[in-house]
Amino acid sequence: MDEILKQTLLYDFYGELLTEHQKSIYEQAVLEDLSLSEVAAQEGISRQGVHDLIKRCSKALEGYEEKLHLVARFMSVKQKVHEMDELLTHYEEHDSKELVARLKAISGEIIEEL
Amino acid sequence: MDEILKQTLLYDFYGELLTEHQKSIYEQAVLEDLSLSEVAAQEGISRQGVHDLIKRCSKALEGYEEKLHLVARFMSVKQKVHEMDELLTHYEEHDSKELVARLKAISGEIIEEL
Repeated sequence: MDEILKQTLLYDFYGELLTEHQKSIYEQAVLEDLSLSEVAAQEGISRQGVHDLIKRCSKALEGYEEKLHLVARFMSVKQKVHEMDELLTHYEEHDSKELVARLKAISGEIIEEL
Repeated sequence: MDEILKQTLLYDFYGELLTEHQKSIYEQAVLEDLSLSEVAAQEGISRQGVHDLIKRCSKALEGYEEKLHLVARFMSVKQKVHEMDELLTHYEEHDSKELVARLKAISGEIIEEL
Protein backbone atom coordinates (compact mmCIF):
# COMPACT_ATOMS: atom_id res chain seq x y z
CA MET A 1 0.00 0.00 0.00
CA ASP A 2 1.10 3.54 -0.75
CA GLU A 3 2.85 4.99 2.33
CA ILE A 4 0.78 8.19 2.51
CA LEU A 5 -2.47 6.24 2.14
CA LYS A 6 -1.34 3.85 4.88
CA GLN A 7 -0.47 6.73 7.22
CA THR A 8 -3.78 8.44 6.43
CA LEU A 9 -5.74 5.27 7.18
CA LEU A 10 -3.88 4.64 10.43
CA TYR A 11 -4.50 8.22 11.45
CA ASP A 12 -8.17 7.96 10.49
CA PHE A 13 -8.57 4.92 12.74
CA TYR A 14 -6.30 5.64 15.70
CA GLY A 15 -5.45 9.35 15.47
CA GLU A 16 -7.77 10.23 18.36
CA LEU A 17 -5.44 8.31 20.68
CA LEU A 18 -2.71 10.90 20.07
CA THR A 19 -2.55 14.15 22.08
CA GLU A 20 -3.89 17.40 20.59
CA HIS A 21 -0.31 18.63 20.10
CA GLN A 22 0.72 15.44 18.31
CA LYS A 23 -2.41 15.51 16.15
CA SER A 24 -1.85 19.10 15.12
CA ILE A 25 1.72 18.46 13.98
CA TYR A 26 0.98 15.09 12.39
CA GLU A 27 -1.91 16.56 10.40
CA GLN A 28 0.15 19.42 9.05
CA ALA A 29 3.13 17.29 8.08
CA VAL A 30 1.46 14.11 6.87
CA LEU A 31 -2.07 14.97 5.80
CA GLU A 32 -1.54 18.53 4.57
CA ASP A 33 1.96 17.69 3.33
CA LEU A 34 3.69 20.79 4.74
CA SER A 35 7.50 20.61 4.95
CA LEU A 36 9.19 19.94 8.29
CA SER A 37 10.53 23.52 8.25
CA GLU A 38 7.08 24.97 7.64
CA VAL A 39 5.56 22.96 10.51
CA ALA A 40 8.52 23.85 12.74
CA ALA A 41 8.04 27.58 12.06
CA GLN A 42 4.29 27.26 12.60
CA GLU A 43 4.66 25.46 15.93
CA GLY A 44 7.73 27.29 17.22
CA ILE A 45 9.77 24.10 17.65
CA SER A 46 12.86 22.83 15.86
CA ARG A 47 12.79 20.98 12.56
CA GLN A 48 14.37 18.01 14.36
CA GLY A 49 11.63 18.20 17.00
CA VAL A 50 8.95 17.96 14.33
CA HIS A 51 10.77 15.05 12.68
CA ASP A 52 11.06 13.12 15.96
CA LEU A 53 7.47 13.74 16.94
CA ILE A 54 6.15 12.50 13.59
CA LYS A 55 8.30 9.41 13.83
CA ARG A 56 6.99 8.69 17.34
CA CYS A 57 3.40 9.22 16.21
CA SER A 58 3.79 6.91 13.21
CA LYS A 59 5.27 4.26 15.45
CA ALA A 60 2.41 4.61 17.93
CA LEU A 61 -0.22 4.37 15.18
CA GLU A 62 1.49 1.32 13.69
CA GLY A 63 1.68 -0.20 17.16
CA TYR A 64 -2.10 0.13 17.56
CA GLU A 65 -2.68 -1.61 14.24
CA GLU A 66 -0.23 -4.40 15.12
CA LYS A 67 -2.26 -5.03 18.24
CA LEU A 68 -5.80 -4.44 17.00
CA HIS A 69 -5.75 -5.13 13.21
CA LEU A 70 -8.85 -2.98 12.80
CA VAL A 71 -7.67 -1.23 9.63
CA ALA A 72 -7.01 -4.65 8.07
CA ARG A 73 -10.45 -5.92 9.16
CA PHE A 74 -12.18 -2.84 7.73
CA MET A 75 -10.23 -3.03 4.47
CA SER A 76 -11.14 -6.66 3.99
CA VAL A 77 -14.84 -5.91 4.52
CA LYS A 78 -14.63 -2.88 2.26
CA GLN A 79 -13.12 -4.93 -0.55
CA LYS A 80 -15.89 -7.51 -0.29
CA VAL A 81 -18.64 -4.87 -0.29
CA HIS A 82 -17.04 -3.39 -3.40
CA GLU A 83 -17.21 -6.85 -5.01
CA MET A 84 -20.92 -7.02 -4.22
CA ASP A 85 -21.44 -3.52 -5.50
CA GLU A 86 -19.64 -4.39 -8.72
CA LEU A 87 -21.79 -7.49 -9.24
CA LEU A 88 -24.92 -5.41 -8.63
CA THR A 89 -23.83 -2.74 -11.10
CA HIS A 90 -23.49 -5.39 -13.81
CA TYR A 91 -26.36 -7.56 -12.68
CA GLU A 92 -27.77 -7.84 -16.19
CA GLU A 93 -24.70 -9.78 -17.33
CA HIS A 94 -25.42 -12.57 -14.83
CA ASP A 95 -27.98 -15.29 -14.50
CA SER A 96 -30.12 -14.13 -11.58
CA LYS A 97 -29.85 -17.33 -9.53
CA GLU A 98 -26.09 -17.36 -9.94
CA LEU A 99 -25.94 -13.67 -9.03
CA VAL A 100 -27.90 -14.23 -5.82
CA ALA A 101 -25.68 -17.20 -4.92
CA ARG A 102 -22.49 -15.18 -5.42
CA LEU A 103 -23.82 -12.20 -3.49
CA LYS A 104 -25.00 -14.46 -0.68
CA ALA A 105 -21.60 -16.13 -0.48
CA ILE A 106 -19.88 -12.76 -0.11
CA SER A 107 -22.36 -11.43 2.46
CA GLY A 108 -21.84 -14.64 4.45
CA GLU A 109 -18.07 -14.11 4.40
CA ILE A 110 -18.46 -10.53 5.61
CA ILE A 111 -20.77 -11.55 8.44
CA GLU A 112 -18.21 -14.11 9.60
CA GLU A 113 -15.52 -11.44 9.65
CA LEU A 114 -17.52 -8.82 11.53
CA MET B 1 -27.36 -3.22 24.41
CA ASP B 2 -26.95 -6.00 26.94
CA GLU B 3 -24.11 -5.09 29.34
CA ILE B 4 -22.20 -8.38 28.95
CA LEU B 5 -22.45 -8.22 25.15
CA LYS B 6 -21.22 -4.63 25.24
CA GLN B 7 -18.25 -5.56 27.44
CA THR B 8 -17.46 -8.55 25.23
CA LEU B 9 -17.51 -6.39 22.10
CA LEU B 10 -15.33 -3.71 23.65
CA TYR B 11 -12.89 -6.38 24.78
CA ASP B 12 -12.91 -8.00 21.34
CA PHE B 13 -11.98 -4.68 19.72
CA TYR B 14 -9.65 -3.07 22.24
CA GLY B 15 -8.64 -5.82 24.66
CA GLU B 16 -5.16 -6.12 23.17
CA LEU B 17 -4.41 -2.64 24.51
CA LEU B 18 -4.65 -3.97 28.07
CA THR B 19 -1.68 -5.61 29.81
CA GLU B 20 -1.43 -9.42 29.99
CA HIS B 21 -2.29 -9.27 33.70
CA GLN B 22 -5.37 -7.12 33.08
CA LYS B 23 -6.47 -9.33 30.20
CA SER B 24 -6.17 -12.48 32.26
CA ILE B 25 -8.31 -11.12 35.08
CA TYR B 26 -10.83 -9.41 32.80
CA GLU B 27 -11.30 -12.59 30.78
CA GLN B 28 -11.94 -14.73 33.83
CA ALA B 29 -14.36 -12.30 35.46
CA VAL B 30 -16.24 -10.95 32.47
CA LEU B 31 -15.97 -13.46 29.66
CA GLU B 32 -15.85 -16.69 31.67
CA ASP B 33 -18.15 -15.23 34.32
CA LEU B 34 -16.14 -16.43 37.34
CA SER B 35 -17.00 -14.73 40.66
CA LEU B 36 -14.69 -12.06 42.06
CA SER B 37 -13.71 -14.45 44.87
CA GLU B 38 -12.83 -17.21 42.42
CA VAL B 39 -10.66 -14.87 40.34
CA ALA B 40 -9.07 -13.46 43.50
CA ALA B 41 -8.16 -16.95 44.71
CA GLN B 42 -6.86 -17.90 41.26
CA GLU B 43 -4.66 -14.79 40.96
CA GLY B 44 -3.60 -14.52 44.59
CA ILE B 45 -4.92 -10.98 44.99
CA SER B 46 -7.78 -9.57 47.09
CA ARG B 47 -11.40 -9.59 46.00
CA GLN B 48 -11.33 -5.79 46.15
CA GLY B 49 -8.22 -5.80 43.97
CA VAL B 50 -10.02 -7.82 41.30
CA HIS B 51 -13.04 -5.52 41.52
CA ASP B 52 -10.93 -2.37 41.10
CA LEU B 53 -8.92 -3.81 38.24
CA ILE B 54 -12.03 -4.80 36.31
CA LYS B 55 -13.54 -1.37 36.84
CA ARG B 56 -10.36 0.28 35.56
CA CYS B 57 -10.26 -2.02 32.52
CA SER B 58 -13.92 -1.36 31.67
CA LYS B 59 -13.30 2.35 31.91
CA ALA B 60 -10.23 2.09 29.66
CA LEU B 61 -12.12 0.04 27.06
CA GLU B 62 -15.04 2.49 27.12
CA GLY B 63 -12.57 5.35 26.79
CA TYR B 64 -11.14 3.82 23.60
CA GLU B 65 -14.62 3.51 22.11
CA GLU B 66 -15.51 7.09 23.07
CA LYS B 67 -12.46 8.24 21.15
CA LEU B 68 -12.46 5.86 18.19
CA HIS B 69 -16.10 4.71 17.71
CA LEU B 70 -14.89 1.60 15.89
CA VAL B 71 -17.33 -0.79 17.57
CA ALA B 72 -20.17 1.51 16.52
CA ARG B 73 -18.83 1.70 12.94
CA PHE B 74 -18.51 -2.08 12.73
CA MET B 75 -21.96 -2.66 14.20
CA SER B 76 -23.56 -0.31 11.71
CA VAL B 77 -21.87 -2.08 8.79
CA LYS B 78 -22.78 -5.45 10.23
CA GLN B 79 -26.44 -4.52 10.50
CA LYS B 80 -26.50 -3.38 6.87
CA VAL B 81 -24.81 -6.54 5.63
CA HIS B 82 -27.40 -8.54 7.56
CA GLU B 83 -30.12 -6.55 5.75
CA MET B 84 -28.56 -7.47 2.41
CA ASP B 85 -28.22 -11.07 3.47
CA GLU B 86 -31.87 -11.14 4.50
CA LEU B 87 -32.99 -9.71 1.15
CA LEU B 88 -30.86 -12.31 -0.65
CA THR B 89 -32.31 -15.14 1.39
CA HIS B 90 -35.82 -14.13 0.35
CA TYR B 91 -34.91 -12.97 -3.14
CA GLU B 92 -37.78 -14.88 -4.71
CA GLU B 93 -40.30 -12.67 -2.92
CA HIS B 94 -38.97 -9.57 -4.68
CA ASP B 95 -39.09 -8.21 -8.17
CA SER B 96 -35.52 -8.62 -9.39
CA LYS B 97 -34.99 -5.00 -10.50
CA GLU B 98 -36.31 -3.75 -7.19
CA LEU B 99 -34.11 -6.25 -5.33
CA VAL B 100 -30.99 -5.09 -7.15
CA ALA B 101 -31.89 -1.44 -6.48
CA ARG B 102 -32.36 -2.07 -2.77
CA LEU B 103 -29.14 -4.09 -2.47
CA LYS B 104 -27.22 -1.45 -4.40
CA ALA B 105 -28.56 1.29 -2.12
CA ILE B 106 -27.35 -0.60 0.95
CA SER B 107 -23.94 -1.46 -0.50
CA GLY B 108 -23.53 2.23 -1.39
CA GLU B 109 -24.33 3.23 2.18
CA ILE B 110 -21.78 0.75 3.53
CA ILE B 111 -19.06 1.98 1.17
CA GLU B 112 -19.65 5.54 2.35
CA GLU B 113 -19.26 4.44 5.96
CA LEU B 114 -16.09 2.42 5.48
